[in-house]
Amino acid sequence: MSYSQFNLEQLVAHITDEILQRLQNDGVGTCCAADMRNAIDCGGARLGLRADLSPDAREMAAYIDHTLLKPEATQAEIEKLCREAAEYGFASVCVNPGWVRTAYNILHCTQVAVCTVIGFPLGANTPDVKAYEARRAIFDGAREVDMVVNIGALKSGNHDLVERDIRAVVEAAHESGVICKVIIETALLNDEEKVTACLLSKVAGADFVKTSTGFSKGGATADDVALMRRVVGEEMGVKASGGVRDLAGAQQMIEAGASRIGASVGVKIVQGVGKPPEVGKASGGGY
Amino acid sequence: MSYSQFNLEQLVAHITDEILQRLQNDGVGTCCAADMRNAIDCGGARLGLRADLSPDAREMAAYIDHTLLKPEATQAEIEKLCREAAEYGFASVCVNPGWVRTAYNILHCTQVAVCTVIGFPLGANTPDVKAYEARRAIFDGAREVDMVVNIGALKSGNHDLVERDIRAVVEAAHESGVICKVIIETALLNDEEKVTACLLSKVAGADFVKTSTGFSKGGATADDVALMRRVVGEEMGVKASGGVRDLAGAQQMIEAGASRIGASVGVKIVQGVGKPPEVGKASGGGY
Repeated sequence: MSYSQFNLEQLVAHITDEILQRLQNDGVGTCCAADMRNAIDCGGARLGLRADLSPDAREMAAYIDHTLLKPEATQAEIEKLCREAAEYGFASVCVNPGWVRTAYNILHCTQVAVCTVIGFPLGANTPDVKAYEARRAIFDGAREVDMVVNIGALKSGNHDLVERDIRAVVEAAHESGVICKVIIETALLNDEEKVTACLLSKVAGADFVKTSTGFSKGGATADDVALMRRVVGEEMGVKASGGVRDLAGAQQMIEAGASRIGASVGVKIVQGVGKPPEVGKASGGGY
Repeated sequence: MSYSQFNLEQLVAHITDEILQRLQNDGVGTCCAADMRNAIDCGGARLGLRADLSPDAREMAAYIDHTLLKPEATQAEIEKLCREAAEYGFASVCVNPGWVRTAYNILHCTQVAVCTVIGFPLGANTPDVKAYEARRAIFDGAREVDMVVNIGALKSGNHDLVERDIRAVVEAAHESGVICKVIIETALLNDEEKVTACLLSKVAGADFVKTSTGFSKGGATADDVALMRRVVGEEMGVKASGGVRDLAGAQQMIEAGASRIGASVGVKIVQGVGKPPEVGKASGGGY
């Protein structure tokens, strides 16, 4: 049977029969049944990668962390987010820590990483709690962790604590080959504090700096992204997040130096590629 | 020397001399010196308890968790909050976990408890992370922990997870004799979900249910407080928080059944006791 000939439903049925047969033979229990269920779900998601995306649309999708962080998000909404991420080929889904395992179960055999948030959205807890939260999320399947800097310590001039706090999460991440981004929450900082937060992130070994949680007074601006890029140089990533509402906004951030975009409207952004820009239309929220 | 005769300044000087003398004799180092510094600071705060508060004002103060949870709060602001709490005799100061040790160092020999927040403000992480965060905060000196319920799990109908999540923090708290309050975030729930969250909090052994984080769409309402009181009965506490802006608001919550008030304007509330009510004046924010 060649790939061009197969019938998907028949294939799934065939594999399911085969696995069920072996499960019976081996006498293995619910754990393997769950794995099989995941594999089937996963296969479904992977096979669902849309064929109608242009190379430009795919390129844009690879910038996007497809994000749903509101606390009232339900399991059904998280599952939909994951399916969309697989369909459009986003860089990751970004979900709260309690949903990492759910997302991993759907996405683990796709190219889409599971990203989560640490000390979120206030950043106001201790380094060891952030490190514990990161390790638990990595254990559950996270491949990227976006931590919030200790804003109060930064504003109190306690740079040692700010750096130790970042380093604690970076170490937890890097020991498992996981990417660590540092959310500096630009809306609450003056330029000097933004520069300091970026430098401390770099010194502490972080992989990215990220503008915003999406839960504070404001989100990413092109000016902030450009400032952050200047400070961290080319060897680190810059993620623009919070308030990126359409393709034009995403392109503006990328031109300013962003290498990743966090947005809840990733589908809208990618669907806009290659179409004439919308003008004068109000757009939705940032997370 | 009887209690009625002593001169406070002489007493402080006497004790300080005594401690310094013993420190020299024992050759003990910076740890004990820090303890002495704390004891002196502490004494200062305790001795600063205002003499001009009426019995009614003191009674109102005992309802209030004096609260500062904005992520950009500085050390100086936290220290001011603690001094005010000692001066007015509030039930507690409520601060983010990263400030618990700072608050404890100022307040540990006063009647003011240190309260902190767990899984805050989204409640969207795993039970073990919340339990770890609670234990770390208790280690740092917290005597009350206000945890946020897993709102997404509640809305997904996963009541088992909601209860396990609460129980994990309750157990961490109770093993050290610490009070555990459960923030149900009423602004995001319908009445059925509010009732469910209160019942699960009760079943899981929590000491209080609490309306709001102060970071969502809205804060406490008298209707919600009354509903929560009806559901949990008299054996649990009910804390109204987020949006209590003045004495009239606090009194309204207490009449509806609140046994604790979380507010950033505790000083204003207590100063209003015994004065004619202000009318038609806009009031400040909830945290």
